[in-house]
Amino acid sequence: MPRYRLTLEYDGAPFVGWQRQENGPSVQGAVEEAIFKLSGERVTVTGAGRTDAGVHALGQVAHFDIEKTFPAETIRDALNAHLRPAPVAVLDAALVDVEFHARFSAVARHYEYRIVDRRAPLVLDRGRAWHVAHALDAGAMDAAARTLVGHHDFTTFRAAECQAKSPLKTLDRLDVMRHGETIVIAASARSFLHHQVRSMAGSLKRVGEGAWKIADIGRALKARDRAACGPVAPPDGLYLVRVDYA
Amino acid sequence: MPRYRLTLEYDGAPFVGWQRQENGPSVQGAVEEAIFKLSGERVTVTGAGRTDAGVHALGQVAHFDIEKTFPAETIRDALNAHLRPAPVAVLDAALVDVEFHARFSAVARHYEYRIVDRRAPLVLDRGRAWHVAHALDAGAMDAAARTLVGHHDFTTFRAAECQAKSPLKTLDRLDVMRHGETIVIAASARSFLHHQVRSMAGSLKRVGEGAWKIADIGRALKARDRAACGPVAPPDGLYLVRVDYA
Repeated sequence: MPRYRLTLEYDGAPFVGWQRQENGPSVQGAVEEAIFKLSGERVTVTGAGRTDAGVHALGQVAHFDIEKTFPAETIRDALNAHLRPAPVAVLDAALVDVEFHARFSAVARHYEYRIVDRRAPLVLDRGRAWHVAHALDAGAMDAAARTLVGHHDFTTFRAAECQAKSPLKTLDRLDVMRHGETIVIAASARSFLHHQVRSMAGSLKRVGEGAWKIADIGRALKARDRAACGPVAPPDGLYLVRVDYA
Repeated sequence: MPRYRLTLEYDGAPFVGWQRQENGPSVQGAVEEAIFKLSGERVTVTGAGRTDAGVHALGQVAHFDIEKTFPAETIRDALNAHLRPAPVAVLDAALVDVEFHARFSAVARHYEYRIVDRRAPLVLDRGRAWHVAHALDAGAMDAAARTLVGHHDFTTFRAAECQAKSPLKTLDRLDVMRHGETIVIAASARSFLHHQVRSMAGSLKRVGEGAWKIADIGRALKARDRAACGPVAPPDGLYLVRVDYA
């Protein structure tokens, strides 16, 4: 049975998240429905990352198996046609080896968290960034981010409902960069805990506004206590940018 | 009577354009209504550029006069509160000299036209760029753009309904740059004819897809004939980025 890999872009706003759920439309469900319309087959689509409600993707990766074989371009174009008007697009489709697994074969996941710090409300970035109405010190946030890079117990930055077996993760990159009034937090790791990026972003924002000192991030990490985390950043600013495979 | 200058960002999608019209909501009307809610005064807001329906602004400039004096920060914050939920934000408000005129004092206007050339439909850029489903040669577009820079009769790139007295304009900048799958056309001039940027963008797209040769842009310009223009680019991709004053 042929296996296809999809690279997906989506606007997370209208979805309950990646994962199919009873309480509303999911990205997974939208893609599965489009595959059904194309092939008549009911399949399960497996994603590299189970993004939460409101979280966006520029390069989510997923795979599925169907009985029929279609040229990859047909998969891409037909799914895009059937996905309309849902804000989900298939950027790429490819026939892959059955050994390929979107979730388990992934060797790196790259997220971006976007904050816009300005007095005026967001217009063109509405729902696409976290609006913080006062100035943040991106340099201090970047200095604090250094503390989190490496192999650590990230219990502080992990949702209570996180299902990972271990809170130990290796964070390969956490850079904070300012581009005009947008602050981008770039985070890379083989895998992340549930809410880890938004928890780190929320704590770094505390540093940026001066409520936390740079060293407080290290203290929060060492506490290994969810209560030591800053308020979790809203989903609007989070993007799954890219997933790497060996 | 104090005069205030506003710097505005807006999403053009829900508006009939900058200018107040009978047939639907305008940006000008939304700002005037917000000023009325703040001050109780019915005023006319004058914009630097009368953007068309669907055209966005990152830095439109406008002015108005009111009887009452408010601190500039109050103007900004109160108008932003009254503008909700319309996608218009006051980025800056300032008390200015009565000699200041948003339209007539402007010495340069900077526009950007954004094209995304990719097979997949737009999701996060939906309504914010012109989607072209085939590859464009941005280098050829930039080479063709050189022909248009300078003092010319832009009759070819002017809407039939344009009210400017003369078709002679000096185009100071027309650069075409690729950033990933986004092609940005940056256009600067003291002033533009009606539909000039969208007309130039539509013609440059013809060059980008190989339907026109680079030299065809010069031939179109020299024709001084509206019929020689390529199809006008849609409003979705156009942004009024900045207006300069002496």
